[in-house]
Amino acid sequence: MSNSTKRVFNFNPGPAALPLPVLEQAQQEMLDYKGTGMSVMEISHRSKEFEAIVSEAQADLRELMGIPSNYKILFLQGGASLMFAMVPMNFRPAGASADYIVTGTWSKKAFKESQKLGAAKAAANLEADNFNHLPAQAELKLDPKAAYLHFTSNETIHGVEYFTEPLPPASVPLICDASSDFISCPVDVSKYAMMYAGAQKNAGPAGVVLAIIREDLLEKVPANLPNLLDYRALAEENSLLNTPPCWSVYIAGLVFKWAKGIGGLAAIEKRNQAKADLVYKAIDASGGFYRGHAKANRSRMNLTFRLPNEQLEDQFASEAKKRDLIGLKGHRSVGGMRASLYNALSVEASEALVKFMKEFQQKNG
Amino acid sequence: MSNSTKRVFNFNPGPAALPLPVLEQAQQEMLDYKGTGMSVMEISHRSKEFEAIVSEAQADLRELMGIPSNYKILFLQGGASLMFAMVPMNFRPAGASADYIVTGTWSKKAFKESQKLGAAKAAANLEADNFNHLPAQAELKLDPKAAYLHFTSNETIHGVEYFTEPLPPASVPLICDASSDFISCPVDVSKYAMMYAGAQKNAGPAGVVLAIIREDLLEKVPANLPNLLDYRALAEENSLLNTPPCWSVYIAGLVFKWAKGIGGLAAIEKRNQAKADLVYKAIDASGGFYRGHAKANRSRMNLTFRLPNEQLEDQFASEAKKRDLIGLKGHRSVGGMRASLYNALSVEASEALVKFMKEFQQKNG
Repeated sequence: MSNSTKRVFNFNPGPAALPLPVLEQAQQEMLDYKGTGMSVMEISHRSKEFEAIVSEAQADLRELMGIPSNYKILFLQGGASLMFAMVPMNFRPAGASADYIVTGTWSKKAFKESQKLGAAKAAANLEADNFNHLPAQAELKLDPKAAYLHFTSNETIHGVEYFTEPLPPASVPLICDASSDFISCPVDVSKYAMMYAGAQKNAGPAGVVLAIIREDLLEKVPANLPNLLDYRALAEENSLLNTPPCWSVYIAGLVFKWAKGIGGLAAIEKRNQAKADLVYKAIDASGGFYRGHAKANRSRMNLTFRLPNEQLEDQFASEAKKRDLIGLKGHRSVGGMRASLYNALSVEASEALVKFMKEFQQKNG
Repeated sequence: MSNSTKRVFNFNPGPAALPLPVLEQAQQEMLDYKGTGMSVMEISHRSKEFEAIVSEAQADLRELMGIPSNYKILFLQGGASLMFAMVPMNFRPAGASADYIVTGTWSKKAFKESQKLGAAKAAANLEADNFNHLPAQAELKLDPKAAYLHFTSNETIHGVEYFTEPLPPASVPLICDASSDFISCPVDVSKYAMMYAGAQKNAGPAGVVLAIIREDLLEKVPANLPNLLDYRALAEENSLLNTPPCWSVYIAGLVFKWAKGIGGLAAIEKRNQAKADLVYKAIDASGGFYRGHAKANRSRMNLTFRLPNEQLEDQFASEAKKRDLIGLKGHRSVGGMRASLYNALSVEASEALVKFMKEFQQKNG
């Protein structure tokens, strides 16, 4: 390895920064994975080497999150967006309705996809408030007969995050799109019937979705779904019903090992909190030069804020880029800035951002 | 790079061998893709760098295959197996029937998935003949009102391959699962309404499916399909409707550049023919010690053969492995041997296999 390899502070919202040791291991194993004389991309998904990749990744994730033994861990394709359709296909029986808490772009998309396929109700919809906070439990209009209650634990675009799960009525399964705060803090999986996450934020590269599903839920899957849309069929074959996205599963597995190695989810949460605190403190101390989008439930993963005007926002992004602070533009649908501080980012990344924010304000405030 | 990196002759059926220069480039660019200071896995799918990866991969594939300008090139997920469901969802209107030519495990699966979702007829079914040849055009029972005619250009498990496309009735679109002989020889794309291929044989790693779709076909897509199952919606967003499998697209793009660089599909076909001829010649000259499964339409991609008994077959595989000839066991559903000779394999791989076959026969024949 050349020591002069350039690396930047990568605040991308996803695909996002990966831990450097993971990339270095992948690089080192590229031509010859563990003495096979083949890349991971070239080995059979039915080989003992790939079976070990899958089973170690599952075991490491199970340990990391404390996933109870009555939950399956699946590696799927199509992103969270395909799960938006598969969840109702699999878990909403004909004639039943499902509840959705709509708290930002992603839960809104999940809700719309579900409505295409059957009955769905918004237990809350925060769009009129510009998705700048989350609903209180008492505000939820919950259907006690709902097939499930779906929520999005972190809204990547609007920057609001659940720190305590919403509570569904008794016997209504709780299903969560956890794409953008997956493995960012400890979680009590037993509260969930299903949790899914596109890997490309905290858990690996794009191309694989993690799905954690309680086994009894799988019994509800209707007959005759297409194989690749049938969670039960996918679970029965342990995600090897067809060729899985092998490379993405391999990298996700390395990320899980790295996460365990740096102390697990408690240590990761502490670091994520420290990183977010630094930036929010800079926002709050800016006298209004930086204005956070979220008024409450501020995300530790995606920190959204505005500057006094769009011209300054463009200037902020371009000057930051010159300092190798990458990916700070907000989503095109909402504008402003967004710093994504996923697991792979160090405290130094937050410190570098805060230093830049202060200097930028001094020059332009 | 250490010169001592072990590399084997990889006859895996998929995931399969990749060109060494592709792996070396991916290795070299792992930590810093083109001066971005990020891995391809870490850059945004909305960045100009990733847009260039997509557009170059499309342009290179278009040039390589001579894809006319009225065809879209998509990078999708879920493997060919998800396409088995999406094709009828998108291209078989309610009440219509589709025709399937059933020539092996894969077309049988495509047919079954289609039957789950609506009406489908077998234009031919070779199962009674153990899928050891392909039907003649005159044997096809073709529905002139079929929504489309589906066939599988190469059966990976049974080792039969179409060298001339079946001819559908006038105005019936021809749709092909080309997973295992994609970009292995020149093809007249204008004969097809749609062609799709899991990348993990000739075109890249697992995790991405190539779909080439004539634009007029997209007008038939029904309203209100889930976004990720809607070819029209996916085409309208140029495969960026959600986060695509970025790494797999990147590697596929490198494979397309490599394929162009070694002379394009005419040169590749010549090499594939030479590789297959060497092995088939050894089979045919073995006096029955090696017996090919396919009686006609022998595949240039997956060469299937038996030995006098299963014990010898096991011995063959394990002794071959000691010589670094990997992946020669036939699919577990059919047994026997299978040598997959995809594009990335050199003539030297065939020569090494033939040398071993001869020696093995001398010792055990």
